[in-house]
Amino acid sequence: MKKHIYIYSPSSAVRDKAAFRRGVKHLRSLGHEVELDPAALASHQRFAGDDATRIDAIARAAASRADVALISRGGYGLTRILDAIPFKAVAKAIDRGTQFVGLSDFTALQNALLARTGSVTWAGPALGEDFGAEAGVDEITQACFDDLLDGSGEGTGWRMPARDAPAMTPPPKSIGGAVLWGGNLCVLTSLLGTPHFPSIDKGVLFIEDVNEHPYRIERMLDQLRSAGVLARQKAVVFGQFTGIRKVPHDRGFGLQTVIDRLRDKLKVPVLSGLPFGHVPTKVMLPVGAKVDVAFDGRDVYVVWGHRHVGGH
Amino acid sequence: MKKHIYIYSPSSAVRDKAAFRRGVKHLRSLGHEVELDPAALASHQRFAGDDATRIDAIARAAASRADVALISRGGYGLTRILDAIPFKAVAKAIDRGTQFVGLSDFTALQNALLARTGSVTWAGPALGEDFGAEAGVDEITQACFDDLLDGSGEGTGWRMPARDAPAMTPPPKSIGGAVLWGGNLCVLTSLLGTPHFPSIDKGVLFIEDVNEHPYRIERMLDQLRSAGVLARQKAVVFGQFTGIRKVPHDRGFGLQTVIDRLRDKLKVPVLSGLPFGHVPTKVMLPVGAKVDVAFDGRDVYVVWGHRHVGGH
Repeated sequence: MKKHIYIYSPSSAVRDKAAFRRGVKHLRSLGHEVELDPAALASHQRFAGDDATRIDAIARAAASRADVALISRGGYGLTRILDAIPFKAVAKAIDRGTQFVGLSDFTALQNALLARTGSVTWAGPALGEDFGAEAGVDEITQACFDDLLDGSGEGTGWRMPARDAPAMTPPPKSIGGAVLWGGNLCVLTSLLGTPHFPSIDKGVLFIEDVNEHPYRIERMLDQLRSAGVLARQKAVVFGQFTGIRKVPHDRGFGLQTVIDRLRDKLKVPVLSGLPFGHVPTKVMLPVGAKVDVAFDGRDVYVVWGHRHVGGH
Repeated sequence: MKKHIYIYSPSSAVRDKAAFRRGVKHLRSLGHEVELDPAALASHQRFAGDDATRIDAIARAAASRADVALISRGGYGLTRILDAIPFKAVAKAIDRGTQFVGLSDFTALQNALLARTGSVTWAGPALGEDFGAEAGVDEITQACFDDLLDGSGEGTGWRMPARDAPAMTPPPKSIGGAVLWGGNLCVLTSLLGTPHFPSIDKGVLFIEDVNEHPYRIERMLDQLRSAGVLARQKAVVFGQFTGIRKVPHDRGFGLQTVIDRLRDKLKVPVLSGLPFGHVPTKVMLPVGAKVDVAFDGRDVYVVWGHRHVGGH
């Protein structure tokens, strides 16, 4: 079915214009109406236009009455304009049926919006990197996006890595009606202590990151833990952490060390292997929606169903 | 005068043992008694021994009755043991006259100690990088350290960079009796939202960092600003930010952009040029002490005097 997709740039300037064009072409080839925000290719310093331009772009995306408002790319730019984002307009657009989709720097908008309005957005693909991928669009990413478009998406599942299986014996008890939230660990942690950080109790927190050394991942997790955020959740879910460059100084300290230590320190289940992050294959996750989580050995199922993700 | 200096390693493992040995030799050549913690050269993964080893090392430094407890190096390791540091023992040692000196990762201990006990520590050199510097010990760093040892240090001063002078016309009003605090921006920010972050009103916050891109510096400053921390201070002081690698994507976005924007967003004076950070020439700064700040054109004077830095 033909859908209306609005492309805008709330974060970094689009430098890879070829990927941008490929993404637009791809979505149009599927029959969708792709509308480009007038500032989608704007550039000011690192940003897709100055702060006012990007704030206006978010407002236009909210006013677009599109089925999906999709970011062109992530990068950096949203944390610096959180005080001025028209959150109410975005929440109203979501109530009207516009789904906001993105990741990485977009984590800032998603969680600040959740903190202020409770509205649900989607952790999912970006135009250029996913739909404009030179190697072609990932089939699972496309299928999850299609599920969003036709309203048939009701959940996701994955198999935990074998190395984490012993930590899951016996498997955790199933979780019911927990708010799913999170996204990019670095961006999320940069909201802690501010009014933009959601106050979610008994939720399911998912995290991913790219190009962060495990010691920095651990320091961020310790900050969230020390702030009491992690112990208040029903589960913490590791997505994909990519671009990690080990150095000789590590002497065996790595991401698995960090995950294992967190399991030691935390009573809540720490899951891993969620197919989401800066990787081609990414599922879509409703940030702010209530989910149920079920376990079957190493298999994890996260279910939201229609009823939780309003508007459709 | 001969002093007793205790060397210990609360953070990363010492890899540059030659610099460590040069540092010890240098301090001994000045006539000091240099005592080495038994775990000063311990190594576990990235760390100078496992968590228990480093917690014990801090306790031994506190029990040493030395005049100065000096870190061998910074790196990473303190944020992960903040829950278990014997803060009361450290505070008692400071009351008895042991001065704790360090920087970088040490910022975590300094500010957590300040949050819990109000005790004053010194932002200053590390053994290896400063007293073991292959190019020789920086004269100003040495002079400031000597001032601490003989109790004659009463303040510091510097000239702000010319490019920041217009922002200082007219100069800010002098500041009296403000708590000086801060250190490494990244480590300090990693305490925000936790019980380890000091609650300092009307203070003078100084910051420095190394190998952080300006967009990350800005994101951390925005987090502190959004949490209300910066507006509560009487001044924010930029020390040295080194190791910044510009990339083509920046298109003019740099550290000066970040400083200029902060000046726009913040009503409190934003000073710059403080000679402290990951640079050879570093003054010593009493973290947690009350200071007066005076201005004379581009010249800034920070004065603490004996009365504020207890014990001597």
